[in-house]
Amino acid sequence: MAPVVEKWADEVRAGDVRALSRAITAIENHDANAEPLLRALFPHTGEAYLIGVTGAPGTGKSTLVDRLAANYRKQDEAVGVIAVDPTSPYSGGAILGDRIRMQGHAADAGVFIRSMATRGFLGGLSRTTSEVALLLDAGGKRRILIETVGVGQDEVDIVRLADCVIVVVVPGLGDDIQNMKAGLMEIADIFVVNKSDREDAERVEQQLNAMLSLVMPQHGWHPPVVRTVASESRGVDTLAETIARFREHFASRPERQKKHVEHWKKRLLELLESRLLERVMGGAQGEAQLEELAREVAERRKDPFTAVSEILARSGLGVRGQA
Amino acid sequence: MAPVVEKWADEVRAGDVRALSRAITAIENHDANAEPLLRALFPHTGEAYLIGVTGAPGTGKSTLVDRLAANYRKQDEAVGVIAVDPTSPYSGGAILGDRIRMQGHAADAGVFIRSMATRGFLGGLSRTTSEVALLLDAGGKRRILIETVGVGQDEVDIVRLADCVIVVVVPGLGDDIQNMKAGLMEIADIFVVNKSDREDAERVEQQLNAMLSLVMPQHGWHPPVVRTVASESRGVDTLAETIARFREHFASRPERQKKHVEHWKKRLLELLESRLLERVMGGAQGEAQLEELAREVAERRKDPFTAVSEILARSGLGVRGQA
Repeated sequence: MAPVVEKWADEVRAGDVRALSRAITAIENHDANAEPLLRALFPHTGEAYLIGVTGAPGTGKSTLVDRLAANYRKQDEAVGVIAVDPTSPYSGGAILGDRIRMQGHAADAGVFIRSMATRGFLGGLSRTTSEVALLLDAGGKRRILIETVGVGQDEVDIVRLADCVIVVVVPGLGDDIQNMKAGLMEIADIFVVNKSDREDAERVEQQLNAMLSLVMPQHGWHPPVVRTVASESRGVDTLAETIARFREHFASRPERQKKHVEHWKKRLLELLESRLLERVMGGAQGEAQLEELAREVAERRKDPFTAVSEILARSGLGVRGQA
Repeated sequence: MAPVVEKWADEVRAGDVRALSRAITAIENHDANAEPLLRALFPHTGEAYLIGVTGAPGTGKSTLVDRLAANYRKQDEAVGVIAVDPTSPYSGGAILGDRIRMQGHAADAGVFIRSMATRGFLGGLSRTTSEVALLLDAGGKRRILIETVGVGQDEVDIVRLADCVIVVVVPGLGDDIQNMKAGLMEIADIFVVNKSDREDAERVEQQLNAMLSLVMPQHGWHPPVVRTVASESRGVDTLAETIARFREHFASRPERQKKHVEHWKKRLLELLESRLLERVMGGAQGEAQLEELAREVAERRKDPFTAVSEILARSGLGVRGQA
């Protein structure tokens, strides 16, 4: 390993904020140093507990995550927050978000907050999130909160990185509980009814419990519903306790190992995917070739399958037993 | 081309419902026949107008899409509907949904409805959606409605397949308009305020217009806001007219060609990705190898980068100038 990477890895492990920030940027930019750094840090990971928080826009996820982070800080746990917004094509909003959100924890080196929004030409936001979580893990953050908006597959993939998944709903979306997608119901370990000082809170909680009563408990755990008013920190202690209870419950379950293997199957596939794409399409030349072929296909001068066969052929990976 | 594929292609082009259904299933299952069929049909595509409809759960997208389909049928346009729910890991709900939704159009061969929910082991729902749209296009459907839930990147990718993107909001999510993600604001060609008989409709429309007034018109088009009550078919005619107006506007713009090239760049990348993954990981052996490596990584006996290098090496694609 290059001495510069070794030093960097040491700094990350010591929780140095600038070293962490630089490392995240390196990952986001696919810098050549990112991989050696992660290789060096990997044996020092696996200690953090990852908590995923998801829900529709406007449910108050960010506030809830901030208050949960504050709760852990009171217990002297180092906390990392990764706020992911895959729908924003720009990182501007994310950076602004960081600034606004850092204010509450600005003087506190025990909280590290990073927003991520951009997806590169070759995609892979859940891969990036996973790698940033490894960094924070190696950097001694024992609680990592991964916050992501919405209900798409991308979010589901990201939130599935977590050891414990919290789905946030609010009253006022009342009849949407019934429309809540199966995917979200299935991944939730804990439900939070936030803004529960609104009048409909009782009904939302009842609806959730009614739905949950129809669902078989997974791994012997029946997802509880916790009511919070995050903006006033109400219910946040109870939520933290419920998370701890889930952690304890799951730690003794045989499925735990299986879940970790599933997790790494996904991560390895993602990594493989970006490795392959980088090899075939990496560099300006790759993008120019893609542009030219896309033009031919758009004009129906070539079909997409022939175009892809040509890309593979030119990259030396082409044609193994097919035309 | 095999005679069986040739005959099949002819049936699809004639709009034969069973041939179309079989073709979609072939695409979903990655059947060996799917690609030759799509190759044969590709030169006969490019005639359909794709309309994407997205919005949060509970906004009434499905009803809106049904009514829009009925509107086009009155004009004697053949219609295809692709309802995509990437959050559902199972196709059961999708099939049930098809059955319920087919009732209204059951006797009408001019409407073809298909729900898609499953994602295979190797992913790629937006690729599948794109290919199904090609089939329907070749099958003579001149209006293809692509409906997708939520606000994730996956949905954004899917809805971007469309020539015209409609974002549906409803009153009662009032303060969420401000939280609406930049990604959605940016892809909308037309906004619909559905359930606009609710009391807050006026305010939601005003908020939308206020936000839109801050956004630079793209391609000389300022996204209009259309109010509908889809359940009573109110406003649906106006929506259809607005779509037609957008289509006409865009047809004369120089960006049109560029947009099609961008579209195909994405599609080619997706196709490339699944080709590469299938080659490296295809088959039961690939999955078993992945499982074994994931186990080693989960137990920190191996880092993920080494694991991926091993997969590449074993598949004969390994190591080009790196350890």
